[in-house]
Parts: sequence; structure tokens; C-alpha cells
Amino acid sequence: MYKYKQAGNGRYILSLDNHVSLIEALTEFCGEHGILSGSIGGLGAVNTATFRYLDPVTMVYVDKTFDEQMELTSIVGNISRKDGKVYLHVHVTASRSDYTCIGGHLLDCRINGACELFIEDWGVEVGRVQNPETGLNHYEF
Amino acid sequence: MYKYKQAGNGRYILSLDNHVSLIEALTEFCGEHGILSGSIGGLGAVNTATFRYLDPVTMVYVDKTFDEQMELTSIVGNISRKDGKVYLHVHVTASRSDYTCIGGHLLDCRINGACELFIEDWGVEVGRVQNPETGLNHYEF
Amino acid sequence: MYKYKQAGNGRYILSLDNHVSLIEALTEFCGEHGILSGSIGGLGAVNTATFRYLDPVTMVYVDKTFDEQMELTSIVGNISRKDGKVYLHVHVTASRSDYTCIGGHLLDCRINGACELFIEDWGVEVGRVQNPETGLNHYEF
Repeated sequence: MYKYKQAGNGRYILSLDNHVSLIEALTEFCGEHGILSGSIGGLGAVNTATFRYLDPVTMVYVDKTFDEQMELTSIVGNISRKDGKVYLHVHVTASRSDYTCIGGHLLDCRINGACELFIEDWGVEVGRVQNPETGLNHYEF
Repeated sequence: MYKYKQAGNGRYILSLDNHVSLIEALTEFCGEHGILSGSIGGLGAVNTATFRYLDPVTMVYVDKTFDEQMELTSIVGNISRKDGKVYLHVHVTASRSDYTCIGGHLLDCRINGACELFIEDWGVEVGRVQNPETGLNHYEF
Repeated sequence: MYKYKQAGNGRYILSLDNHVSLIEALTEFCGEHGILSGSIGGLGAVNTATFRYLDPVTMVYVDKTFDEQMELTSIVGNISRKDGKVYLHVHVTASRSDYTCIGGHLLDCRINGACELFIEDWGVEVGRVQNPETGLNHYEF
């Protein structure tokens, strides 16, 4: 699902294979390398992406899939663990064929072209716990 | 205003409390930890954000506030000092309920949901000085 | 074309001069410092930017230039080498005077105001090779 090269200080340079799911590939990578917490940054191109928006009034999640070729102008995310499993939190900005941008909380997207990521392993354990006020899984420090 | 965990090499993982001002929380954090320069990266959700646009012809600042629930798809910023005080320079991209993106130079925003930041302390002193040509406070090296 | 300050661990804080080309300035910086691979992050303001979109059906590159004052809300890129020369891969998101965002794969842009970058030298050699399937220059690991 990916090729990678390791740099010093827990840093990894990743190139995702064409047509893979970004979330599946990253989850596998983090599991394989035992990453307990870290940052994700990068860019890429996709032909489908699904975003989740939380309506703050109804507290209903609204998911929408965009099936079109887009450049990911930024991939910003973090890695932690919930119940021992890899937990990814990723937001992306995507530019369309008319260069306007859409984006949001990423459920998943599929690479079409290249996707180049930079992962930094923070080397500490960071968990997640549901916050009673927001209903979201916040960092557990 | 925040919870945090320290990783090695001057790195901090932050979770801002719900409903706080991003700029106030970051300013307090940087002051508390004596950070003289560093990078800010992350994601979050807000229900109000104010952006500043500099009209290059009239040289007038045009500020606009968006009062709506948005995901911050990228928070990119840096930390320096001006006249001994914490000086933050932050740009954000935000996605709206229709997933289209707005953004700009951030004056401030208010968290509604979660906001997860990654701060890297560069460990060097970086100041600011007004540039006579642009009128902006540039890095002073 | 730029001023900079070095922090520890191969990190550089850059301030580009007004009116320079981002790609020219970064290429010169990476050459001058012998950077073989690394990450680029930052923010800035420009008065022209050219984006490249690859039409996945026709496989034709469509380039478009926007001549207007914009804030770069995110600059995300990486540094590698191809045939011994500096090879930059940069995506940007830009906000317009109405605060809506455009962006994409950056061919180049011209700074108008400030541009503040953070470069991290990964300290390893990373090359590029053309991928037969996508036609793009992927990382060579």
C-alpha cells in the first residue's frame, strides 16, 4: 500500500501506492511501525473523498462524498491510540478542476496519482477518551 | 484553556478547551513555556473566525467575521517575539457546512468542538521588526 | 532572495524577500544548503500564482494563473533530488479578497508582502523516478 524511507528522529517519508485508501494505508503503516502518537503532513491527488461535517445545532453528522479528480493541497493529521488501536484524525483541503477548494474532516479518500506524506513519531503514548460535552474523542493526557 | 503533553525535542501536543479563543490560548501557552520561536500546526472546529485581508492598492486592512460552524482544515503558524511579547502569525483554511473553503490571515477564532495542535519549539530567539516597504512585521534575523 | 536563521537539527526559518518567485527562492536556498530531502511548510501573501491540474481522463495538464492579491493559507511541500538537481513538490491553498479559497499543485507564485517558511532537512538522500503508470515523478526509495 506504500513505500517509505526512514529519516532520523522517528521521521518517515511515505509514498502511497496508486488507488489505495489513505486511511487504510496510514493505519497499516502506523500499526506496522508501532507508532503510538505522531503528526501527519503532506499532499496528493485523489479521485474520491468523503468529508464529515458535524451540525452543531442538531448534533447530526452529515457525510458527503465528492467523486472527482482533486489535488489535496494540504493533509493535516495526527496519530494516537484508542482502546489500543491506531486512531487517526485527519483534515484535508482539496482543489477541484476549477481550482476552488473544498475540504473538511476526512472519512477517507482514494489516491489517484501520487500521495506524499511526512510522518513524525512523537515517541510518547497518547490515548483518546470521549468528551461528555462535545461527544468527540479528545486527546487523553 | 488547554491540556497538553510534552514529547521530546521541544515538541508539545495541545488540546484546546472548548469555547476558548485560539489566539488567547496559544499566547498563554507560549508565555507559560517561554517559547521564543516555533511552529504551529493542527486542525480543529470553530463557530466564529475573523480574517484580515490587506488590500494591496489602498493598503487598507479589511476584516471579516464568519459566524458559523466550520472545520479548520489547516492551521499553519509561527511563534516569535516582538518587544519581548509573544507574537503569533497564523493562517487558517476553514470548511463550511457545504464543504467549500474560506480562509486567510487569522485575527482570531473560537473553538467549538475540538482543536488539536502540534507546537515545535525551535529553541532560538526570533524577533520582529516593521518592514518599511510592506508595513508588515517581518522576522528580524 | 531570502533571509534565514538556522535552528538545531537541520531546521531553517526563512523569510522570502518581497516580489521574489517562491520556487526560485526555495530552489536557491536548497542548493546553497545542500539539502537532499526535506519538508516545507509556511504561509505568505502573493499577487500572482499559477496552478497545474492534471485532467485524469485526457491526461492533459491544465495550467491557470490567478493575478490577484491572495493570502497563502497553507504552503505544503517537500524537497528531493532528480538527476542531481533540487526537485520541489509544492501545493498551496490561497484565499482571495472575498476570503474564498483556491489552490492546487503550484507551478510558481510571486510574493507580495511576506512569506515565512519552515524547512526541515531530513538528512537523507531521496531521488525521483518517473512512474510508468501515473506518468508522474514519484519518490525513488
